[in-house]
Amino acid sequence: MNAKQVLPPDCSAARFARALDDFASVLGEGAVLSAPSDLAAYRDPYSPLPNEDPGAFAPSAVLLPASVAQVQDALRVASAARLALWPVSIGRNLGYGGAAPRQRGTLVLDLRRMNRILEVNPALAYALVEPGVSYFDLHAHLRREGIALWIDPPAVGWGSVIGNTLERGFGVTPYGDHAAMQCGMEVVLASGEIVRTGMGALSGGTAWQLHRDGYGPGIDGLFMQSNLGIVTKMGIWLMPAPETVLLCQASFARESDLETVVDTLRPLRLAEVVHGPAVIESAVRWAAGVSARSDWYDGAGPMPATALQAMIRKLDIGWWNLRFGLYGPAALVQARWRIARKAFGAIPGARLRAWPYDAAGVASAPPDSAGALGLLGVPGLSAMRMLAWCGGDGAHLDISPLCPATGADAMRQYLLVRDRAAAHGFDYYGGFTAAPRCLHHIFAAIFDRADPQQRSQARALAHRLAGELGAAGYGLYRAHLDLMDRVAAQQDFNGHAMLRLVERVKDALDPTGMLAPGKQGIWPRGRRPRAQGGGDN
Amino acid sequence: MNAKQVLPPDCSAARFARALDDFASVLGEGAVLSAPSDLAAYRDPYSPLPNEDPGAFAPSAVLLPASVAQVQDALRVASAARLALWPVSIGRNLGYGGAAPRQRGTLVLDLRRMNRILEVNPALAYALVEPGVSYFDLHAHLRREGIALWIDPPAVGWGSVIGNTLERGFGVTPYGDHAAMQCGMEVVLASGEIVRTGMGALSGGTAWQLHRDGYGPGIDGLFMQSNLGIVTKMGIWLMPAPETVLLCQASFARESDLETVVDTLRPLRLAEVVHGPAVIESAVRWAAGVSARSDWYDGAGPMPATALQAMIRKLDIGWWNLRFGLYGPAALVQARWRIARKAFGAIPGARLRAWPYDAAGVASAPPDSAGALGLLGVPGLSAMRMLAWCGGDGAHLDISPLCPATGADAMRQYLLVRDRAAAHGFDYYGGFTAAPRCLHHIFAAIFDRADPQQRSQARALAHRLAGELGAAGYGLYRAHLDLMDRVAAQQDFNGHAMLRLVERVKDALDPTGMLAPGKQGIWPRGRRPRAQGGGDN
Repeated sequence: MNAKQVLPPDCSAARFARALDDFASVLGEGAVLSAPSDLAAYRDPYSPLPNEDPGAFAPSAVLLPASVAQVQDALRVASAARLALWPVSIGRNLGYGGAAPRQRGTLVLDLRRMNRILEVNPALAYALVEPGVSYFDLHAHLRREGIALWIDPPAVGWGSVIGNTLERGFGVTPYGDHAAMQCGMEVVLASGEIVRTGMGALSGGTAWQLHRDGYGPGIDGLFMQSNLGIVTKMGIWLMPAPETVLLCQASFARESDLETVVDTLRPLRLAEVVHGPAVIESAVRWAAGVSARSDWYDGAGPMPATALQAMIRKLDIGWWNLRFGLYGPAALVQARWRIARKAFGAIPGARLRAWPYDAAGVASAPPDSAGALGLLGVPGLSAMRMLAWCGGDGAHLDISPLCPATGADAMRQYLLVRDRAAAHGFDYYGGFTAAPRCLHHIFAAIFDRADPQQRSQARALAHRLAGELGAAGYGLYRAHLDLMDRVAAQQDFNGHAMLRLVERVKDALDPTGMLAPGKQGIWPRGRRPRAQGGGDN
Repeated sequence: MNAKQVLPPDCSAARFARALDDFASVLGEGAVLSAPSDLAAYRDPYSPLPNEDPGAFAPSAVLLPASVAQVQDALRVASAARLALWPVSIGRNLGYGGAAPRQRGTLVLDLRRMNRILEVNPALAYALVEPGVSYFDLHAHLRREGIALWIDPPAVGWGSVIGNTLERGFGVTPYGDHAAMQCGMEVVLASGEIVRTGMGALSGGTAWQLHRDGYGPGIDGLFMQSNLGIVTKMGIWLMPAPETVLLCQASFARESDLETVVDTLRPLRLAEVVHGPAVIESAVRWAAGVSARSDWYDGAGPMPATALQAMIRKLDIGWWNLRFGLYGPAALVQARWRIARKAFGAIPGARLRAWPYDAAGVASAPPDSAGALGLLGVPGLSAMRMLAWCGGDGAHLDISPLCPATGADAMRQYLLVRDRAAAHGFDYYGGFTAAPRCLHHIFAAIFDRADPQQRSQARALAHRLAGELGAAGYGLYRAHLDLMDRVAAQQDFNGHAMLRLVERVKDALDPTGMLAPGKQGIWPRGRRPRAQGGGDN
């Protein structure tokens, strides 16, 4: 045993060692990792925590089951040893804690070895995948097999299709709302029971991947951002390869244009003229894809407006930059673009461009390709360039409030985030991804993780923003491990009634709290931070 | 007390009388109905049950709360009296049992008096409504206030927006998948606790009606086709009034064309060329909107092919008849129609027509208006004309299998349903409503409820179809009271694992089984028909 070993809560080194032996006996020796060098990859890669507390989210071990049966085996051993597991599909939930568990010492159940693409149906346009299948994997499979279906990749392509979908991640094609494109799950409960949801509940059923929910209550939502079960298979709808694509881009000159841009975009999204999530990016977010901060400014603290303006001129971009794709038969795409071009062109100072692609040309990309690959259904890693923005050992911590799709709300959130970020020394690296009625406002504090002062400021900023945004009625759709309890506590309607309901479901499905304690603020009985107004009745 | 009085299960007349007094004391005298004449409207209006068992689904009383507080009051009294409640929004779930409870003697909790339209947001295109708001009500409100938003009405407009949505009903505009357009609920649990779902869990939150689900597990699905809570408010997305509409219609000459029509439609739906649920109707369903069966045939048993052909010729319709709407800017609508017209026009014998509407003309309708009003967002009652098809005291019993969106599956289901219907003496009154990947195949057995023989045949047919469709892998999306247990039993994967999961949630949220016992086959502990493989752990 190593002096630096992390143990599960309330577990002696001896009991833990016996449990690891038991796990190895059912999973195989190579499928149980406990050496500190092996566990390093399962810590929060961008932890904002202070040096004296680097292991707050450290796992005690990692289990790598290769099958549903081994997931059941792992649950059986964990139950007997009274140990909790933190399931991850691949663990690329970067910016929110990576593969690290909320509670120090929880064992990570890493499902990456379950990486089969079980079915792709070209006619009905869906895939059935296991948790270890990444967006890269699925994209490569479709290309290799010559199947004319597109994936919708999130910003970074190495993540798990299931993992991203369960966290309600999104992309930028018309299939960008990943949770809405999920259809049918297989879930292993804490008891080890295997459940198939929706029409998968019918043995030999023909609609498991075709019809969301089924007969009776719909339970799929229960397993999103959740610790109520382990999703081992998931159906995902795929977009038939469009006949043509037009990548559309508009830049807007003034900081205050955000309001008009949002109010112009909303009716176009509602009328399906712009039929995928459009992205409105700040100048810094755009610039980080093609340059480093030191190219523009060398000082500490946020870039001053003069440096920002110089950067914007030199890069020939806007203060705000809009991107979206149009997809389908050429006549439809052209009709959509004429309408959108006219609408955005009416904003003073707007500049618009568009790049057409036919089915054969989709593998290439326009000159500024940072955000374009995703619009073409191609997974990439270029979003990781953000880490080099500030130099040093780059890391980011994301704050993701939901924003009503009105210009007034977007401006209010932007100014609040911009000013608080500046107060803590950060540039506004952010953007809005637009569903018809609601925007995902994503801000990233980019910091040097080797610098304790920057880490501390990033953490302070995140907590401050979560608090101030929540108080203004703007909830976060997702949160870093360090913020999970705080955001859960904001769900305060009627004495946290929704959380208490979920806790009752938790107690019913996982009475001993084996699965992912603390995930999204849901703790097992006995570990709950809030007073239980109304009790468990 | 009346000799014909229906009592709740395990309840004496004296205890029931005391409970009714208690209900009256909290709800008011007029809000408690128990006279047989008042209860008649709460029986299954189209019951297929034999004469000797007319009251199998009869309620013992009806409660009419006027507010959420009165719903809580009713739950308190019911709990003290150990009585179960069957919540309905308005109770227009016709064809599946109406307002009648699954278990004889359950008290109906009719929410029709809670009929406020709490909010309509024209810019963000949603409404927040109470259960008593019908599609007629919401449509009239929007017209009266001059709000340029459309509802998506189901086939019959007098139903509740919430009720239809909770049963996963659908319409035919691009907002036709009602469950998918639901955003944010308020639910009263059996305990009386009020929960707001999604971003409504955040007091003062701004995204309750803007973002489906929220932070942590999504629970809205739990309250669909469910007895886990009473939905007292619901957000519903509305379509901005389109600039133009084109009503499109195609008729196909041969019975076997169904296969080609479905295979032609699927890629158009997947590519969003046809961007709403398209409906493929049998000749009889079309004819029932404009004529009576006796106009074409007077014999018993199903109409023979010669009579069908004569009817088709005379009405100038197809064996199969396709309808869909195209919505939006004229350029987009025209581009869509050119593509769709070319695709369907390639089917030999196809005849295509289209009627354009601008924003001002939407109140009118084309000559054969039976199905057109729904495509124009206008609620109607013309679908009720089906009841006059056979003469007598018309009733219908619906069977609604989900069908993969392939021609082969559609033909297989059609032939199975057609032949079994014929064997029991019924015409094939049916159609397919097409989502991109899955069709709702709706068949209605139309019968004379005054005729015991026809009732008996309708019931036998429904059970036979449910059984044979389920065995072929075609699950029903919804079921009549009389079929609820049978369809639930078909969810047999891994020893009915999904149903056992839902039952565990039921026990956690409603341990005494107060809410809607037997709804969709979910019974309280102690009344469950199936062996509990795996127990409750």
